Amino acid sequence: MTLHPADRIDRALADTGSIACVGLDPRPELIPPALRRAALQRHGDTAAAFAEAVVAYNLGLLDAVVGRCAAVKPQVACYEAYGSAGWRALEETVAAARERGIAVVFDGKRNDIGSTATHYAQGAFGGAPGLDGAVVGGLGCAWLTVNGYLGADGIEPFLAPDAASSEHGVFVLVRTSNPSAGDLQDQASGAGTVADRMAALVAGWGGGRRGGCGLSDVGAVVGATWPEQARALRSAMPDTLFLVPGYGAQGGSAADAVAGRRSVGAGHPGLLVNSSRQILGAWQQHGADDWAGAARRALDVMNGELAAALR
Amino acid sequence: MTLHPADRIDRALADTGSIACVGLDPRPELIPPALRRAALQRHGDTAAAFAEAVVAYNLGLLDAVVGRCAAVKPQVACYEAYGSAGWRALEETVAAARERGIAVVFDGKRNDIGSTATHYAQGAFGGAPGLDGAVVGGLGCAWLTVNGYLGADGIEPFLAPDAASSEHGVFVLVRTSNPSAGDLQDQASGAGTVADRMAALVAGWGGGRRGGCGLSDVGAVVGATWPEQARALRSAMPDTLFLVPGYGAQGGSAADAVAGRRSVGAGHPGLLVNSSRQILGAWQQHGADDWAGAARRALDVMNGELAAALR
Repeated sequence: MTLHPADRIDRALADTGSIACVGLDPRPELIPPALRRAALQRHGDTAAAFAEAVVAYNLGLLDAVVGRCAAVKPQVACYEAYGSAGWRALEETVAAARERGIAVVFDGKRNDIGSTATHYAQGAFGGAPGLDGAVVGGLGCAWLTVNGYLGADGIEPFLAPDAASSEHGVFVLVRTSNPSAGDLQDQASGAGTVADRMAALVAGWGGGRRGGCGLSDVGAVVGATWPEQARALRSAMPDTLFLVPGYGAQGGSAADAVAGRRSVGAGHPGLLVNSSRQILGAWQQHGADDWAGAARRALDVMNGELAAALR
Repeated sequence: MTLHPADRIDRALADTGSIACVGLDPRPELIPPALRRAALQRHGDTAAAFAEAVVAYNLGLLDAVVGRCAAVKPQVACYEAYGSAGWRALEETVAAARERGIAVVFDGKRNDIGSTATHYAQGAFGGAPGLDGAVVGGLGCAWLTVNGYLGADGIEPFLAPDAASSEHGVFVLVRTSNPSAGDLQDQASGAGTVADRMAALVAGWGGGRRGGCGLSDVGAVVGATWPEQARALRSAMPDTLFLVPGYGAQGGSAADAVAGRRSVGAGHPGLLVNSSRQILGAWQQHGADDWAGAARRALDVMNGELAAALR
């Protein structure tokens, strides 16, 4: 059964009451000591040890957050830093999320020209051609973050022919949450900025690609640290799902994170708000013995704050 | 011994007479039938079979091109499409290139905010922190392609503190070779275009980061399909090494590929010209029995054409 990727996020809100996305960004210091020790005993201080500890941590986190979030988002760089061992951990993490029915956002900010972008799509979504024509690999993620600097033919390879057959979507970087985002994104271009131009492209690429919830499968990354821009960008992209990083540890409040919401009454607010460190590292403030419980409670707090901000 | 990454490319020109970069972009149909059959017999039609055939092919290619090119450039998407198995093939390929003394350009067009960009740098260059503080993994590539849409703090994590300690460089996408590159890159911004603005950023980021050859470790990707733009971009980036894709199979001629050269007499022409399919797939026109010889001869032809165009 084909389920449009925006409808999947919309259904998750109906089922869980949440627009939260849990960032699975494993860094050594965020992994609870007991899991670290066990992996070090088995593998020494190697990439394999990191990968084993990450999988143990992520599986516990997934059990803690299932039914309480709209999606999870592995930051691929955190895995890729450890090469093929890290990629194995990513594969096991995504597979475990899928088993639990959680939509996965592959946060890789991939981008390339058409034929090469197709390879990235194959890796993140449905698989690539084998030597004799079988379809092999493919993580089965629901969404992928992409960088739109290359224009339409760097985006189209990630999309199904039309909305009716769409099962995967992209979030295109529009306005990022980092301090130097303005080096290019805030430069004047036409009547607005480079980010405004990207927003217009995103709205165009998503035109006619809406699911039943009214949101398209071409989403946008709009950082929570820039609420005024988020409101302006919503006007330019009324039917776009915003992936909002920067909530919590990066400094954005719940009010900031929902600044780019769709108008009340439009159904889904059009937001998927990510938090990583605040959930993954919650045990650092509340004790490592119940690290999964600490993550769950941190997510519940975030869900409460977001719900209050949306009211 | 620290060797600035631009000086490494300059030394390769002195040693080999070549400014060519051989793109290692494995696709099933480019792998010679005998290698495909052997891998299928051992592994069936799986990602593991693809990976084994790719490693066999790449190792033969590296032996064929060593001493005849300035660098090799694995297109990471082609490996990543096959998940951790593809990443193992990438690791073996890069290790084999390093054993042969060939500089490797990791073509991943990576990009993210600062702390996350650091992870990408760790994976492509020198390794990441293990669970107990050891440095693990790290491909040991010399260069990495990056997308500069996030501005300075998405670039700096890839760079050493200064030119004297630099061993790794980046190529920032400025003007790409794909048909829709102009969707954003050709849009007006200030006195020029978005690509011009990116060029100014690249020149600024590379300021004071030159090696002995006069080129900085912040390079630029400038597609061979746009020679007039390449000439204009050279004025904006006089000390920048251009990575030029689009030569050969993508339609750019040798004259197009060298359009963005530095002025004659400046030493290194400031160009690293990539060809992938024309070299990897040369056996398809000249017979699969001597696929390595076909690749070597195709590279020799390319080197001759580039040398003539530079004269």
